[in-house]
Amino acid sequence: QVTGFGGMDNPGYRTGSFDGLHHPSDDDDDEMVDIAGATLDFSTTDDVPPLSSSLTEKHESSAGVNGNGPTKLVDPLEDPVPGVGTYEDFNTIDWVREKSKDRDRHREITSKSRQSTVALLHSVSDAFSGWLLMLLVGLMSGALAGGIDISAHWLTDMKEGVCLNGFWFNHEHCCWTSNETTFQERDRCPQWKSWAELITGATEGPFAYIVNYLMYIVWALLFSFLAVTLVRAFAPYACGSGIPEIKTILSGFIIRGYLGKWTLIIKTITLVLAVSSGLSLGKEGPLVHVACCCANILCHLFTKYRKNEAKRREVLSAAAAVGVSVAFGAPIGGVLFSLEEVSYYFPLKTLWRSFFAALVAAFTLRSINPFGNSRLVLFYVEFHAPWHLLELAPFILLGIFGGLWGALFIRANIAWCRRRKSTRLGHYPIIEVLVVAGFTALLSYPNSYTRMSGAELISELFNDCSLLDSSQLCGYQQPSNISETGVGNTLADRPAGPGLYTALWQLALALVFKMMITVVTFGMKVPSGLFIPSMAVGAIAGRLLGVGMEQLAYYNHDWIIFKGWCSPGADCITPGLYAMVGAAACLGGVTRMTVSLVVIMFELTGGLEYIVPLMAATMTSKWVADAFGREGIYEAHIRLNGYPFLEPKEEFEHNSLAVDVMRPRRADPALAVLTQEGMTVGEVESLVESTHYSGFPVVVSQESQRLVGFVLRRDLLISIDNARQRQEGVVSASQVVFTEHAPSQAPDAPPPLRLRGILDLSPFTVTDHTPMDITVDIFRKLGLRQCLVTHNGRLLGIITKKDILKHMAQIANRDPDSILFN
Amino acid sequence: QVTGFGGMDNPGYRTGSFDGLHHPSDDDDDEMVDIAGATLDFSTTDDVPPLSSSLTEKHESSAGVNGNGPTKLVDPLEDPVPGVGTYEDFNTIDWVREKSKDRDRHREITSKSRQSTVALLHSVSDAFSGWLLMLLVGLMSGALAGGIDISAHWLTDMKEGVCLNGFWFNHEHCCWTSNETTFQERDRCPQWKSWAELITGATEGPFAYIVNYLMYIVWALLFSFLAVTLVRAFAPYACGSGIPEIKTILSGFIIRGYLGKWTLIIKTITLVLAVSSGLSLGKEGPLVHVACCCANILCHLFTKYRKNEAKRREVLSAAAAVGVSVAFGAPIGGVLFSLEEVSYYFPLKTLWRSFFAALVAAFTLRSINPFGNSRLVLFYVEFHAPWHLLELAPFILLGIFGGLWGALFIRANIAWCRRRKSTRLGHYPIIEVLVVAGFTALLSYPNSYTRMSGAELISELFNDCSLLDSSQLCGYQQPSNISETGVGNTLADRPAGPGLYTALWQLALALVFKMMITVVTFGMKVPSGLFIPSMAVGAIAGRLLGVGMEQLAYYNHDWIIFKGWCSPGADCITPGLYAMVGAAACLGGVTRMTVSLVVIMFELTGGLEYIVPLMAATMTSKWVADAFGREGIYEAHIRLNGYPFLEPKEEFEHNSLAVDVMRPRRADPALAVLTQEGMTVGEVESLVESTHYSGFPVVVSQESQRLVGFVLRRDLLISIDNARQRQEGVVSASQVVFTEHAPSQAPDAPPPLRLRGILDLSPFTVTDHTPMDITVDIFRKLGLRQCLVTHNGRLLGIITKKDILKHMAQIANRDPDSILFN
Repeated sequence: QVTGFGGMDNPGYRTGSFDGLHHPSDDDDDEMVDIAGATLDFSTTDDVPPLSSSLTEKHESSAGVNGNGPTKLVDPLEDPVPGVGTYEDFNTIDWVREKSKDRDRHREITSKSRQSTVALLHSVSDAFSGWLLMLLVGLMSGALAGGIDISAHWLTDMKEGVCLNGFWFNHEHCCWTSNETTFQERDRCPQWKSWAELITGATEGPFAYIVNYLMYIVWALLFSFLAVTLVRAFAPYACGSGIPEIKTILSGFIIRGYLGKWTLIIKTITLVLAVSSGLSLGKEGPLVHVACCCANILCHLFTKYRKNEAKRREVLSAAAAVGVSVAFGAPIGGVLFSLEEVSYYFPLKTLWRSFFAALVAAFTLRSINPFGNSRLVLFYVEFHAPWHLLELAPFILLGIFGGLWGALFIRANIAWCRRRKSTRLGHYPIIEVLVVAGFTALLSYPNSYTRMSGAELISELFNDCSLLDSSQLCGYQQPSNISETGVGNTLADRPAGPGLYTALWQLALALVFKMMITVVTFGMKVPSGLFIPSMAVGAIAGRLLGVGMEQLAYYNHDWIIFKGWCSPGADCITPGLYAMVGAAACLGGVTRMTVSLVVIMFELTGGLEYIVPLMAATMTSKWVADAFGREGIYEAHIRLNGYPFLEPKEEFEHNSLAVDVMRPRRADPALAVLTQEGMTVGEVESLVESTHYSGFPVVVSQESQRLVGFVLRRDLLISIDNARQRQEGVVSASQVVFTEHAPSQAPDAPPPLRLRGILDLSPFTVTDHTPMDITVDIFRKLGLRQCLVTHNGRLLGIITKKDILKHMAQIANRDPDSILFN
Repeated sequence: QVTGFGGMDNPGYRTGSFDGLHHPSDDDDDEMVDIAGATLDFSTTDDVPPLSSSLTEKHESSAGVNGNGPTKLVDPLEDPVPGVGTYEDFNTIDWVREKSKDRDRHREITSKSRQSTVALLHSVSDAFSGWLLMLLVGLMSGALAGGIDISAHWLTDMKEGVCLNGFWFNHEHCCWTSNETTFQERDRCPQWKSWAELITGATEGPFAYIVNYLMYIVWALLFSFLAVTLVRAFAPYACGSGIPEIKTILSGFIIRGYLGKWTLIIKTITLVLAVSSGLSLGKEGPLVHVACCCANILCHLFTKYRKNEAKRREVLSAAAAVGVSVAFGAPIGGVLFSLEEVSYYFPLKTLWRSFFAALVAAFTLRSINPFGNSRLVLFYVEFHAPWHLLELAPFILLGIFGGLWGALFIRANIAWCRRRKSTRLGHYPIIEVLVVAGFTALLSYPNSYTRMSGAELISELFNDCSLLDSSQLCGYQQPSNISETGVGNTLADRPAGPGLYTALWQLALALVFKMMITVVTFGMKVPSGLFIPSMAVGAIAGRLLGVGMEQLAYYNHDWIIFKGWCSPGADCITPGLYAMVGAAACLGGVTRMTVSLVVIMFELTGGLEYIVPLMAATMTSKWVADAFGREGIYEAHIRLNGYPFLEPKEEFEHNSLAVDVMRPRRADPALAVLTQEGMTVGEVESLVESTHYSGFPVVVSQESQRLVGFVLRRDLLISIDNARQRQEGVVSASQVVFTEHAPSQAPDAPPPLRLRGILDLSPFTVTDHTPMDITVDIFRKLGLRQCLVTHNGRLLGIITKKDILKHMAQIANRDPDSILFN
């Protein structure tokens, strides 16, 4: 039935089929859509003006209509119709048209700027509006990230106790002002009371432990309940990490409300709650979503970006960089992350602006100073000891571990999410979150490495042991002859003490626990990032291996391979570096990031020499993980949700031709086309009604099938409706004319309806013999929505993005109907 | 006359018209071409097989021939002809065809790999060959860069004196082993003799000075004479920085020998000589060329890269990153430089590999340790004092200076180079170099800041003054009451002493001198980079401003704006930071780099906080310079030389249509087309002979003008010649058939010549109404060489890259005939 590209007007998409993000129980869905609609007052008025919109609207949008065909070809008598050139929800934009529209706008401003000073000023302000917008995005995202850091820190500590000086102080802050604390016991001050102390008065003993334990669970449940309820009630789009959807949006898809005001507010609040609840999730991914929301909302301040989907996506790409910049304190890494992982269309101009925005955000965050150490992240590290060439072997081992874990995690997580979608499990998201949160809290509390937050855990694991360190992980046996060998030498090699052995056991348990629980956690209906849990898994594994290597080197320092390593006065092996390499490997295995990951880690350590281990591990991890499946977690989630995303990284390997992919297929009825003259309004309407295609090619005549142009269903319907309402004498019998000059007709005939203005006179065509790899390349690079197929100059069929994705799914032996949207 | 796209077969291009790089005196040119040809034994045998090449060659190149049309459509009877699918010198490649060829090759290997273990191993080794190649490129470039650094250091010192322990020691190295040197006078040891000491025995006095002066000039002249003679005799392509040509090559142009063996050898040697001669030039740009030569030569080891122009360009992009990585010790900056400034087609895979190669090169260089400080560059710096927000004003001032100087420099340099090309000046390159070198040496020697090499000067200017520093630039008045205020406080603010005032005067003179001489130096027939001279100019200006600000703050520390700055015990102002910001601004003004420049500078300092001043200055500098002309120095040189380079950064602003740009123009004769059947070999040959077009559209019939495909002149000629020689019965009267099935013909007719195998069945088409901005976008993004224009399904004309460039030149009121090549 659907021969062209169907389903654009399928009302089901708005409510029913979009169940990738929320479960499909009817009442809830309707509620959600209503709310989502209400939150989108900007977008709906700007982008989808109703057919009978006001005249001012009409004039404003005139630039957009003439966008594609150049101005001189449009009949001056035709007035542009509002709504033409806009998109419906859950549809793909046409990059070429959008970019062309923007160039037209720019050209107009430039040509006007020569006429008057006001216009010149307007042109200058237009040129700088991009920079201003970036500045605002950076400031707003940095401030929000700072707020999130501080609140999450506070709420996390709230699970353990409260500050008597004021409940709004976190543990560290509470004890800062205290005079009674020594350096060793910085975090024990009389002002800070654990719950047991407050309720029972006892600080020690089993009873106090149980009270603290219970309070910990209660708070975890409360926070997670609040988070999931807020998400479900106000902004269903606020759940998850948001990166798969942002990738899809940046590739040219429209999801209204995904980057709206309500999503921003709710995501910010629930992110704090979710992180504080102790669930195995991080704030890094959601911060990207938050930054993109900021950017999208701020875009509404500037006509240039409000009106143009392509320009807005440039800003969103920069916002993704901002998100990572504040999440890891890595502006360069953030820009590369956006370039490598998220963005689709990333011109060099955007690179420069992204960098600016990322920098502004990083400095805003630093001036807020959420961690009190003038660092942007909790786990900034400085290593001093060099590494040895032979250590590359354990680093590569960590890479293999990371790759295996990444591949396994993706499979398990996708299987779990699919089960959630297909079984009754998905109907009870609140209960699911509560169960997982309760379970996490129950198992986390006894183990100090799972009790602390993910970022703190990573910070502790990355940390290099100094002599003064009181952490359990640094529980080495102090050599008895300190005075003799000097401080420097004692550091060199030390046997593990009982404290360290305990810590290792706890870490091993934490590793198993984190690996399990993260699979279930990612994809729940709360904001949840994957970076921190993945890094935590890798960091634990790395630290374990690092300590193992260290002890091996200590007890066998006469082995040949260890001979050169342990020079007196310097550490043989830095277990913290192993933790860092492990974290990079696991994160790489899960997300398949490469350059950006290494650069982010480089910005965390600041030392160029540690890039080599990181690179070795990341490369290994990517290769190992790719051997089990080429998709990263984000691509896997995109496919799970059926978004129309054409992966820019992967090559199209199959050797099919355009003719194999195009519609109509051999057995199907011929392509529905319009002729450039000779059809009446009624005929056009009935053709449009009887099909689902979102666009129709216009040909010279049905016999010759020579292509003239392409007209979009939406533009056609809006124009005809508009003409019927406003234009004198347009009735069903009126001729529809797409030619430049109206043909002569009988004097008593009704006036023709001239629609050349909405006709795209430069549709993309390929020949039927074009290999699909080239066609896919064209779609990707130009950002096409559809492409017409010709044979020896005759129109033969049409290929849409969805057709390509279905074809690719078919080749990969997947269900082609999993691609849901156009 | 030339209605299509002409001149491909114009023999003049090989010798006569390519005078952008060398002057057109005839005998010299021939010599050059011979030599360049001789150096290219790899490329000529691989890429341009003669028509009568051996059968083994034939089988090897078979994959390439079927590349564009898929295999099944090619008549199995037709044997692929060697030479089809290759390019001539000074022509543009077809990216789509090359990439498609590579995908076919890859597909073949993948499908074979399932059949046998050997094939599987072949497939794995093929997959990893890219990484191996990158490793080799990194190692080779790093080693070469190390060698260049060491040799240049040695030869530069040679101008002043010689080491008695061995003439191969440079000054520093010579004095390392000496026991008689104190820390203060590290560089005065008895083993090192200045020329005056050696010749006259006197170390001081006017006579010794004059002898040293003369020897300095003599050495400078000798080095520069050697450099220019070697370049002219063995590798004319070795002159200049090479970046404009590499940009053009990466955009898909072919310049045979530009990246060949001889160019590499000669460039390496002459670069050392040119740098040592004291000319105002740097080694950074040429290092990019050297790295690209390494990559190109190493590409010949791997079939995958040797045979495919697109794949080879991926490697060259990575090599550009390697060049910058070793030049500045900035691997990330290098990759971004390649991405931002040099590359055209830069897939993410290449990003990752470039990063790897850049890192390998950096570590190779570091293990060579050319500067003896385990840093990669001479001017690595560490700043400690923070900067103040109000200091942004002078930083922006430096940005304005940098922008102005950049714009001025580009204009002056281009004017000078144009004069060199058009007047008799260009006929005497050796004399030109000698005059400039002599003049430079004469004026440089008296001023210690011009006498030292550019990198040393920059290093000194970037340097922060410590108390122990004996440099003139740190000649502050020592406070009398050291013991009283303590060491920390004395640093805080110090008045300038007489030493500093002398240094400032010398610096001011050096600034003027450098600004002048660099304009004349860049573009001479020696290897010459612009990075160091530009940075030197900026660093001098910055240091002057920095010292000025410092003294202003010292003498007026009661002004409100300075109140908060000078806290006791810390420097008020870091003049070294000003020098660095100035260097970035000037380099930005000249090259218009943005992100990569900031990242390179960031990697030099290592402190995230100094990015903001750098960014402010770079942004200002770019805006100011862009106001005077949008082109950077490399683009300006590309245009000067008439290369067919379609700038990927700039938007096409004019609103012309495809129909305005295409050939034939309205008054011209119709487009020369072939029909898919019905033409004889003789007719085809006479059509080809009578035109200069490098390709011909094939249509169904002359009447319908319905497009079937496109055939390249070169492929057509090779195939017909081949068929006449080998295929039975092909005579002038034979029919040329492009259809799949041969038409029936009279039984006594000669057998038809079937040429569907060389027909591109998927030529790119746009409609006549397509706006040129979209067309230009398509050309850029897909890397097209030509595109056919249709109207309502009929073939109307053709647009080539050259047509677009000519059109753009016309719009910008430039001479469209300045575009020389296809």
